[in-house]
Amino acid sequence: MKVRETGLTVGKLPTGAKNCITDVLGVMVGHVTLDYPLDEAGIDYACTGVTAILPHKGNVFKQKVTAASYVINGFGKTTGLVQVNELGQIESPIMLTNTFAVPAVAQGTLEYMLEENPEIGDTTGTINVVVGECNDSYLNSIRKFPVKPEHAIEAIKKASVRQVEEGAVGAGKGMICFGYKGGIGTSSRTIGDYTIGCLVLTNFGKKEEHQRFRYSNVEGLQETADGSIIIVLATDALLSDRQLLRVSKRCGIGLGRTGSHFSHGSGDIVIAFSTAHKIEHFSEETTEQRIQLREDHPLMNQLFTGAAEAAEEAILNSLSQAKTTKGRAGRVVNTITFTDGE
Amino acid sequence: MKVRETGLTVGKLPTGAKNCITDVLGVMVGHVTLDYPLDEAGIDYACTGVTAILPHKGNVFKQKVTAASYVINGFGKTTGLVQVNELGQIESPIMLTNTFAVPAVAQGTLEYMLEENPEIGDTTGTINVVVGECNDSYLNSIRKFPVKPEHAIEAIKKASVRQVEEGAVGAGKGMICFGYKGGIGTSSRTIGDYTIGCLVLTNFGKKEEHQRFRYSNVEGLQETADGSIIIVLATDALLSDRQLLRVSKRCGIGLGRTGSHFSHGSGDIVIAFSTAHKIEHFSEETTEQRIQLREDHPLMNQLFTGAAEAAEEAILNSLSQAKTTKGRAGRVVNTITFTDGE
Amino acid sequence: MKVRETGLTVGKLPTGAKNCITDVLGVMVGHVTLDYPLDEAGIDYACTGVTAILPHKGNVFKQKVTAASYVINGFGKTTGLVQVNELGQIESPIMLTNTFAVPAVAQGTLEYMLEENPEIGDTTGTINVVVGECNDSYLNSIRKFPVKPEHAIEAIKKASVRQVEEGAVGAGKGMICFGYKGGIGTSSRTIGDYTIGCLVLTNFGKKEEHQRFRYSNVEGLQETADGSIIIVLATDALLSDRQLLRVSKRCGIGLGRTGSHFSHGSGDIVIAFSTAHKIEHFSEETTEQRIQLREDHPLMNQLFTGAAEAAEEAILNSLSQAKTTKGRAGRVVNTITFTDGE
Amino acid sequence: MKVRETGLTVGKLPTGAKNCITDVLGVMVGHVTLDYPLDEAGIDYACTGVTAILPHKGNVFKQKVTAASYVINGFGKTTGLVQVNELGQIESPIMLTNTFAVPAVAQGTLEYMLEENPEIGDTTGTINVVVGECNDSYLNSIRKFPVKPEHAIEAIKKASVRQVEEGAVGAGKGMICFGYKGGIGTSSRTIGDYTIGCLVLTNFGKKEEHQRFRYSNVEGLQETADGSIIIVLATDALLSDRQLLRVSKRCGIGLGRTGSHFSHGSGDIVIAFSTAHKIEHFSEETTEQRIQLREDHPLMNQLFTGAAEAAEEAILNSLSQAKTTKGRAGRVVNTITFTDGE
Repeated sequence: MKVRETGLTVGKLPTGAKNCITDVLGVMVGHVTLDYPLDEAGIDYACTGVTAILPHKGNVFKQKVTAASYVINGFGKTTGLVQVNELGQIESPIMLTNTFAVPAVAQGTLEYMLEENPEIGDTTGTINVVVGECNDSYLNSIRKFPVKPEHAIEAIKKASVRQVEEGAVGAGKGMICFGYKGGIGTSSRTIGDYTIGCLVLTNFGKKEEHQRFRYSNVEGLQETADGSIIIVLATDALLSDRQLLRVSKRCGIGLGRTGSHFSHGSGDIVIAFSTAHKIEHFSEETTEQRIQLREDHPLMNQLFTGAAEAAEEAILNSLSQAKTTKGRAGRVVNTITFTDGE
Repeated sequence: MKVRETGLTVGKLPTGAKNCITDVLGVMVGHVTLDYPLDEAGIDYACTGVTAILPHKGNVFKQKVTAASYVINGFGKTTGLVQVNELGQIESPIMLTNTFAVPAVAQGTLEYMLEENPEIGDTTGTINVVVGECNDSYLNSIRKFPVKPEHAIEAIKKASVRQVEEGAVGAGKGMICFGYKGGIGTSSRTIGDYTIGCLVLTNFGKKEEHQRFRYSNVEGLQETADGSIIIVLATDALLSDRQLLRVSKRCGIGLGRTGSHFSHGSGDIVIAFSTAHKIEHFSEETTEQRIQLREDHPLMNQLFTGAAEAAEEAILNSLSQAKTTKGRAGRVVNTITFTDGE
Repeated sequence: MKVRETGLTVGKLPTGAKNCITDVLGVMVGHVTLDYPLDEAGIDYACTGVTAILPHKGNVFKQKVTAASYVINGFGKTTGLVQVNELGQIESPIMLTNTFAVPAVAQGTLEYMLEENPEIGDTTGTINVVVGECNDSYLNSIRKFPVKPEHAIEAIKKASVRQVEEGAVGAGKGMICFGYKGGIGTSSRTIGDYTIGCLVLTNFGKKEEHQRFRYSNVEGLQETADGSIIIVLATDALLSDRQLLRVSKRCGIGLGRTGSHFSHGSGDIVIAFSTAHKIEHFSEETTEQRIQLREDHPLMNQLFTGAAEAAEEAILNSLSQAKTTKGRAGRVVNTITFTDGE
Repeated sequence: MKVRETGLTVGKLPTGAKNCITDVLGVMVGHVTLDYPLDEAGIDYACTGVTAILPHKGNVFKQKVTAASYVINGFGKTTGLVQVNELGQIESPIMLTNTFAVPAVAQGTLEYMLEENPEIGDTTGTINVVVGECNDSYLNSIRKFPVKPEHAIEAIKKASVRQVEEGAVGAGKGMICFGYKGGIGTSSRTIGDYTIGCLVLTNFGKKEEHQRFRYSNVEGLQETADGSIIIVLATDALLSDRQLLRVSKRCGIGLGRTGSHFSHGSGDIVIAFSTAHKIEHFSEETTEQRIQLREDHPLMNQLFTGAAEAAEEAILNSLSQAKTTKGRAGRVVNTITFTDGE
């Protein structure tokens, strides 16, 4: 269940209708989950998956969105950020998967986008694909590359605007957070007419570090090496890329409040976009108009607060929604049992 | 009193002997506090000051220290960071004051360093001075420039390795934090053989934002515009400039845990240095030897945790140690009265 | 004379009417030059000054301009960049002076802006002042602080939209470039309906490094230590702060083409602004409209080219316009005598 | 032939013995070139390849090298830079290929490194792979994905310390520079006991932009859209990661001197490493010793100069060594014919 149902609330801002990143109008999420043995004995096991976040239901290459990325800690293999930073835009679905599946997922996403856009690589330029990752090698036989390009394509095709499935699903299938089962979590906030939503892939934290919850488990904890978190932030607020970057940085507050100290071995990365403005790939215009929030308007500070709150609650949801999961070599990671809020 | 005496503890790592930045061997702190009317009626009032942090008791220009800076939010006027970032070193005392006193304090510090080093600007190059600031204009007549260059020199000369005075003192004299009196706070942690210490100048936060403490006041709150925090981090850990930058970033965790969302109008800046290695200004050598902590050693993660904990506790100390203060136009900012920990 | 009059041309784009930064409509430049002995024997000598660049003739605090800064090499003491980078705007004149005069010039500029804006530091927030610098200590008694705050105010008040005086004038009075007399230089380019202008303060380069000119001098060269260059870029092109940053980076091309390798001891810094959009400090609006050049429009690449060409030519003008100058301790730096272009 | 054989020299520093990146002791380069029709009519054509640069002949994961990356212009899809920037190290071969082959080459490199290191993804953490790219879609049927993971493995296995083959080879097979055939180029400089070498993949520039050479061709020019350049810098100089970053930035000078203005659509990226210090992946030590060049030693400035010179000459070599090449749809890109130096 969502962590709010356990009585634990995060912050003071109201959530969106679904308390999901899909509360941001048009944003779509799709999961493909892999859960099967790779050999007869089940020593090697596919316990992983792919999650796709689509900024809108149209052609993202032809109608790009304003974007920013922020590296909280850079021990990670996320791809595509160089161009996001240079141009302040995203032109593909944002994909999440396991560390060694980044090439396969990048390949599949590329194939999907080429299929949709015959001009790419022929009469127009190339395309930048964004793939984030965490290391699920405790449960998943990451060295066996169970994720294939077609899984990425399938995740994109399955994406919908509905309530997002959380926990041990999609890219979150094999992830571990604070020693318990983590994975995909999401949350949102409404700020005036704006909505800000967050989806996380959680794979970080040691048992003794968490700060924001009580739970009843006394055993079964799996302490793993340094993990990571990918934080995807979506909003319909009228923000420039620089303003999105400012908002992105506040996700680290939410992460810190759960207990993380952004450990050495973490790839803690925020990828943010605003759906408020579409940037046309093909255009005869010389200029384009951007409407943006005045920098000193109180809504800016509320967006900062919203990003921190949504990130924190998304992380807690990734825990509260994740069921006990069995993976390679008979390994099991248990669900956490929240006993109350704070 | 220190916040620990109220029963509120922060984190799990042990503090240094004084729970001060001066627990890092050799680090010295000096304050000059200005507290007097600037006109007969006392409408204009000097309620401000200067704080100097010296990396060591020697000549910092001749023996520079490894350093890094990190801008959490950049609505601030801190000077000197361009060179700190390029060279990874600090060659002057780190000075704190009010926003409009940065030129006076830079001037005074420069004069002090020129006096100590007749070669500078003559037979050798120039010198980079680092001055951080917050805006104390609610209590202090900032437009009247009460701080003069000689106050900076005096603060440097008064610096000592003793227990640091906290609260409404030095640069902290006129600062406000979460609607109550803030100012200077400090804390430290010991990590193996290493010590990490933090000194903050706090001037941020609205009443409703704080997260980590209860207090008994029911009135007298002053809500001000967006404020700032300067965080000075000192350590004797064997860290390179890049590693110091990594540690610096974790101070934002501590700041976030007190309730801040790094508001738009904040200049939230971390300046960090390590005393472990002295970089000789005058040298005939071609190379120099640096010993540094292995990146993946568990001490690195503990330093991250220590930076977050020390920053958070230093902020709380700046509140618990600050006495009710009267400033310009008869304005008063009250001390907070902690009633318990969490 | 301007370097073009020697027969040396730079690039292919047409210059503006004055081949000055003031070709950008509304941009104003003012110089104050100090040139007098500081003692009877003239051992100590004031051979320095201040140059002010005003983005427009109005109140820059109340009507800010879009801005960006780029550090080519950061061995420098330029102040004000932290806030420029965070907010993408400039709200004060951009001031140039010698290294140790930064505090005095910041103080004077602050006083001027406070005088013009009684709300600052009282009923509204503070103000961010930008001051760039180079080290003129070969000719100027930099340790004696000949520049005072009133010189900064005077430079601002003298600013005009007219042809800019170049060479050994204003902040350029004591500077040295490639072993010959440098200082202030400026150039501009027109690109469609847009103009881009550049003003430089040159103080870098060794004789053997230059690449782009021939000259007839055979003696009198002064080889100094690593110097610096401040590059101020103005345009009326419709650029966002991120786009201005992209344009700024191309100034390094022009600098490199003159022969510089961005030496270790250089503070090579670009400060850029666009006059196309004014950002109101006081506003009741929630949002603001920005019109910006489409990222992939050919004008963007031409602006890149224009920035590189204008920076290179401005540097050459700082040389060709600078007269032989006498400074402290009887030292003389000679004018270069260009014999032809390439 | 090497551009020096045409009489054109670049800079003043002496080249290494081979005037190649492999002059840096231990550095190895391997190419795999694809050159065949993909259909009977030859409309689709594989005109592309892979180039591998190995920092040393050992296991780069187990013995990592100090590294840095610098984005001159970020319209590119290079992968792996987030972790290079965070940790200042490289732990895999550096791979070059075409834009859409990045996933395949990342996959192949990953497979190679997993084969060599059974601990990765099992008992130790993951591995960061660095792949740079340019868009060869004028000559190569990039949408058909002719490059496969095994080509990456083959390029690694073929790597040697010998003279590097240049021009239309490896990843350079289909690239175009200043309208003529470009591709792989390399050059080196010796600086005291140090060597610095540069290898580039060139795919940028329009005919009218070049600045540094004369050529006899009067026809056959192919003007393509904005291109890119990847610059790999190797040295045995004792540099920290921050120092390597400083050196990397100077490659932009060399690029600018050839005529580039870092066009909007370019992915102009520098990846640098030093072989002077090996960072052990498996170690029981708490600290490690680094010897590094003193920041203000004259060798630092010479390394800056060397990086600029080697980058410029490597670019020119990529042109002078590249033969006329035929690719998809019967398209041909001609070799340039240098007629003299400047």
